Amino acid sequence: MRFDLLMLVPAGSLLALCFAAYLALKILKRTEGSKEMVRIADAVREGAYAYLKRQYTGVAIFFGAMFFVLILLAVKGHLPIFVPFAFLTGGFFSGLSGFIGMSIATRSSARTANMAQKSLNSALGVAFSSGAVMGLVVVGLGLLDLSIWYYLLDWWYSSHPTPAGMDKLGAITSTMLCFGMGASSQALFARVGGGIFTKAADVGADLVGKVEAGIPEDDPRNPAVIADNVGDNVGDVAGMGADLYESYVGSIVATMALGVAAFGGLGMSLQAVTIPLTMAAVGVLASVVGTFFVKTEEKAEQGALLMALRRGVFSSSIIVAIASYFVVKHILGMQYIGIYWSVLSGLAAGVLIGLSTEYFTSSRYKPTRAIALSALTGPATVVISGMSVGMLSTAIPVIIVSVAVLASYYLSGGAANANMGLYGVAISAVGMLSTLGITLATDAYGPVADNAGGNAEMSHLPKDVRQKTDALDSLGNTTAATGKGFAIGSAALTALALIAAYRDQIIIMGGNINLSLMNPKTLVGLFIGGMLPFVFASLTMSAVGRAAGAVVVEVRRQFKEIKGIMSGTAKPDYARCVHIVTFAAQKEMVIPSVLAIASPIIVGILAGVDSVTGMLTGATVSGFVLAVMMANSGGAWDNAKKYIEEGNYGGKGSSAHKAGVVGDTVGDPFKDTSGPSLNILIKLMSMVSIVFASFIMANTLMK
Amino acid sequence: MRFDLLMLVPAGSLLALCFAAYLALKILKRTEGSKEMVRIADAVREGAYAYLKRQYTGVAIFFGAMFFVLILLAVKGHLPIFVPFAFLTGGFFSGLSGFIGMSIATRSSARTANMAQKSLNSALGVAFSSGAVMGLVVVGLGLLDLSIWYYLLDWWYSSHPTPAGMDKLGAITSTMLCFGMGASSQALFARVGGGIFTKAADVGADLVGKVEAGIPEDDPRNPAVIADNVGDNVGDVAGMGADLYESYVGSIVATMALGVAAFGGLGMSLQAVTIPLTMAAVGVLASVVGTFFVKTEEKAEQGALLMALRRGVFSSSIIVAIASYFVVKHILGMQYIGIYWSVLSGLAAGVLIGLSTEYFTSSRYKPTRAIALSALTGPATVVISGMSVGMLSTAIPVIIVSVAVLASYYLSGGAANANMGLYGVAISAVGMLSTLGITLATDAYGPVADNAGGNAEMSHLPKDVRQKTDALDSLGNTTAATGKGFAIGSAALTALALIAAYRDQIIIMGGNINLSLMNPKTLVGLFIGGMLPFVFASLTMSAVGRAAGAVVVEVRRQFKEIKGIMSGTAKPDYARCVHIVTFAAQKEMVIPSVLAIASPIIVGILAGVDSVTGMLTGATVSGFVLAVMMANSGGAWDNAKKYIEEGNYGGKGSSAHKAGVVGDTVGDPFKDTSGPSLNILIKLMSMVSIVFASFIMANTLMK
Repeated sequence: MRFDLLMLVPAGSLLALCFAAYLALKILKRTEGSKEMVRIADAVREGAYAYLKRQYTGVAIFFGAMFFVLILLAVKGHLPIFVPFAFLTGGFFSGLSGFIGMSIATRSSARTANMAQKSLNSALGVAFSSGAVMGLVVVGLGLLDLSIWYYLLDWWYSSHPTPAGMDKLGAITSTMLCFGMGASSQALFARVGGGIFTKAADVGADLVGKVEAGIPEDDPRNPAVIADNVGDNVGDVAGMGADLYESYVGSIVATMALGVAAFGGLGMSLQAVTIPLTMAAVGVLASVVGTFFVKTEEKAEQGALLMALRRGVFSSSIIVAIASYFVVKHILGMQYIGIYWSVLSGLAAGVLIGLSTEYFTSSRYKPTRAIALSALTGPATVVISGMSVGMLSTAIPVIIVSVAVLASYYLSGGAANANMGLYGVAISAVGMLSTLGITLATDAYGPVADNAGGNAEMSHLPKDVRQKTDALDSLGNTTAATGKGFAIGSAALTALALIAAYRDQIIIMGGNINLSLMNPKTLVGLFIGGMLPFVFASLTMSAVGRAAGAVVVEVRRQFKEIKGIMSGTAKPDYARCVHIVTFAAQKEMVIPSVLAIASPIIVGILAGVDSVTGMLTGATVSGFVLAVMMANSGGAWDNAKKYIEEGNYGGKGSSAHKAGVVGDTVGDPFKDTSGPSLNILIKLMSMVSIVFASFIMANTLMK
Repeated sequence: MRFDLLMLVPAGSLLALCFAAYLALKILKRTEGSKEMVRIADAVREGAYAYLKRQYTGVAIFFGAMFFVLILLAVKGHLPIFVPFAFLTGGFFSGLSGFIGMSIATRSSARTANMAQKSLNSALGVAFSSGAVMGLVVVGLGLLDLSIWYYLLDWWYSSHPTPAGMDKLGAITSTMLCFGMGASSQALFARVGGGIFTKAADVGADLVGKVEAGIPEDDPRNPAVIADNVGDNVGDVAGMGADLYESYVGSIVATMALGVAAFGGLGMSLQAVTIPLTMAAVGVLASVVGTFFVKTEEKAEQGALLMALRRGVFSSSIIVAIASYFVVKHILGMQYIGIYWSVLSGLAAGVLIGLSTEYFTSSRYKPTRAIALSALTGPATVVISGMSVGMLSTAIPVIIVSVAVLASYYLSGGAANANMGLYGVAISAVGMLSTLGITLATDAYGPVADNAGGNAEMSHLPKDVRQKTDALDSLGNTTAATGKGFAIGSAALTALALIAAYRDQIIIMGGNINLSLMNPKTLVGLFIGGMLPFVFASLTMSAVGRAAGAVVVEVRRQFKEIKGIMSGTAKPDYARCVHIVTFAAQKEMVIPSVLAIASPIIVGILAGVDSVTGMLTGATVSGFVLAVMMANSGGAWDNAKKYIEEGNYGGKGSSAHKAGVVGDTVGDPFKDTSGPSLNILIKLMSMVSIVFASFIMANTLMK
């Protein structure tokens, strides 16, 4: 009876993928509008494909090399032989969902602009459906990957011996735990590379276009304008999707592994493993239902539009909240109903972090308005007040996560059995991520609306169209900010689950581990881990600066060499700009990536597994805080500038506006490159540690 | 024989105080120069006294209230009855050293300017002597306080019973550990209040004076100019002094307490307690000797001037490095010579952190020049590249501290005996701080040179005088940056020692403590602790903004209402500006102070001692990293601006210069308010936790 529930997982995967296909077909049935609109959309799509092609080539090389390393580790007995292959599929499915999500997103922007000529609601419908395709493909492919490997390993270990000291489920979950690394690596490239691309194009386009040439944003005369629009897709769609794909898969496999540790002694491993998988499947259903709640009226104000999206997320959350009670009760029985409360804490934490983010970044509230006010005394005070808001905004998410951790630990019975408590913490991450299908939809819809606005501008559509797309875009900024909060919060909880699973693996492999704060190795690990997010953020920020510099040089060259761009008689060479940013982003990505992958291995070899665990924890703590700060500072600066542009403190063109633009420009790499990349850093380092655990135990200099 | 060595402590104190008195008299024998110079120096001194008077009034109220609380705790049996009184003396001596240091500093600036008319060397002599007075008074009064209490408690416990479960030395060190809180509280007010004052006056004076009225820096027509000069004294002299007084005393008492735990079982408590005290006394002698090495030639360049100061610090360090070998050998014997290596790691770490700071903040090196270059593309890129440099610069100090912790732990025998290792970590902090007398001198000399420049400007001395004071001032910026690195590094090591001592105290009091990273309470503590420095920095930064706003309003009012300021026929009301900043700083200080003091108590009551320890560790890790980042970003921005002013990238008045000024203004609260305040936060929270330990164990909701 219980095993049957596992069938929900491929079923959920199928539901998600089919519904995504249905939405995609519905979008494609719409027309893209005038020839000009089609032409622009084609250019963006081509640019996006060109970027993805280049990126996937780099990724393929990396995956090839890493596959070889993992095979070596497997041959030496440090890894189950399945891991290298699982690594490949994890990366493949993550890449595939990014590809599909972006294909649809780039096909939806012109259609959204076109629909906006008809009505706001139909424009919202297209843009949101495009986001929903991304969200559902991510969860659908995630569950597909999990299903394939679960059934494959189950079949294999039914007829082959399991590794020493493990039962079948232990062997399955240990193996599956490792394969998150494929998703992690892919996410690294998508998030970091995409983040550098999007902001380098944006900043580069603005620096020469807006500042030097004095032409407006999204002006077709700007050679970098297509690159800028491509960037929205590769950074905010594909990057965000890969980030959350990783969290989604990572939290589920970590929970499965911790479930075996917690319930193995009770003979209830299978039930414990079934819970997170079933919940994910229930979440798919809830997400699909939620999409039907997203509708708006024609004359909707900003608040009503936001409510339209919220209705979708909230209704999905309520469905999961109710359904998971029965899932836990049915699978584990009332004795373990505490697990349900853990799920609920995660779910609630996700929603609350979103609300806190909104408060600190929306111009409807005091913090962002205070930044706008400070623009009256110049750019320095804008920067200071924006940093100050970002730093202050870390308090509430940290308290929310802390309460969620304590609640999910103790409510699931951690006081009596620590393993149970850790399982509870892990399942709270799954709870938070269960509604990912729709949460990601509200997030990935933003870039589509943004691009639709760009398309409307470039193809000279009537002003009221741009107003409608602007309304959608502005809402997209809010959902992007809350989405970032959600991504960071879920990354932190997922990382904690992975760290706990890592410790378990060390113990299963017969290692000693002393995680006391008074162990100098753990302590030093904490310090190093606490520092790494700062260095990582520094590297990604300066990468944006250099890549943007390359764009500036190219745009200046085109303005100079291609006569007639400014008068509109000659077309700029958009593709060349895309090519340059693509190349720069790929190059700039190397050092941060090496840092993320090499750190746990180097620290492990030099100082052992206690230091590694300390490092992972330190990086999670400081990465979480820093990521929240950077995302919220950036979001608040952005909206403070928009608030000034709405006519406050002198409006567009005033000195306050100029100061606001400085804040916004500083915030760009904060919120779209460095901040979100930290999510990947903390999860990827945990994954690398898990995969290399046995190797490091055998080769560390400090045993 | 061994007990006799303890006599070195009062002897060292006496030496420091007598030599300080000698230097002070030497300074006062110089003349202050023209009437105008005297008048200006008087105005600054009066402002500084007015500030101190106001601050000490606030402090007195706080100390009164806290004394009452501590008496209550003592009556309830949560504290030895001596603690409330020791709390008062700790605060008193810290305040006294701030007062003396500032008195001499404000008496030295005009004399430095006057001596600069004669020669660079004699100007250096006055300014450096003034710094040395501060340095020596801090260590002298610190050792005096320690001596008084050590002998008093020794006498008392020789004829009275010790608390249950403690021998005499255990009782002495437990009590003395608590009294660091007096120094901590005083430091909070000095560092945070002084930091807000100095930057509010600076930013306020610049915003109206330089930007609106277009008059140069240090122009006597600016009503806030005296407040600005006062700020250098209260922030950089008194604030820095109180900060390091706290580290100095805190590291010594923590080491003493840990020494009893490590060597008690061997019957060697007295020896273990004697070591840090003796080393401090040796450090005094080394510092006094070091001052004689600080001399320069007349035509000295920047590099030669820096070497002059470095000679002083390096020779003192070498003396300590050699002498402490014999101290350890003589007191503990060759069997424990590992302790000597711990001392050496701390000493070396202090020097190395200073060098790393210099690399990242001096315009002679690549990072700062890269910031200057980025000024060509505007203020946003200056801010981004400065943040990036600051973040990157955290790596080396973290690695230095990590290596120092591991080295001092294992070299002192921590592998076999954990208590021995923790004692080793603590003694490395003492090693780092042993040369404080001279390290602080090179640091506190800066503001004197700065003020001398202001005095020369305002009293219209010949240009070459200003050039000489500028050379000294510019060097002061470098020593201020390295001094900050030293202050942060020593604060981190001191905090670690205090955390270890805190854990010891909990165990001595019969409490349970589980510091595993897998304990959710510890983990949540780490998250909260990791967040607090960000919130604290946010609060202090926005405090500067508000206080600066008050200055702006007042300066504008004076320009408007007092006719003839701009033409020089009327004098502005300097005192009123000083009064306003004083008042604003005192008011703005309240919330950050409450946060620092209340957090450990609230977390303790809500979540118990595991969470408190986690919080202290998390705050130390993230506070250290954030403080380094803020100090180095700020220093690099400052020097990048100066580099542009020297004629690079367009020089003064160019758009690059304007962009550089934005960076510098952002950096002001970074490096002089928020960054340094974090040192206090991490130490004070540890101190509060120690003092309230018994109370929290009895009253926590999560046992």
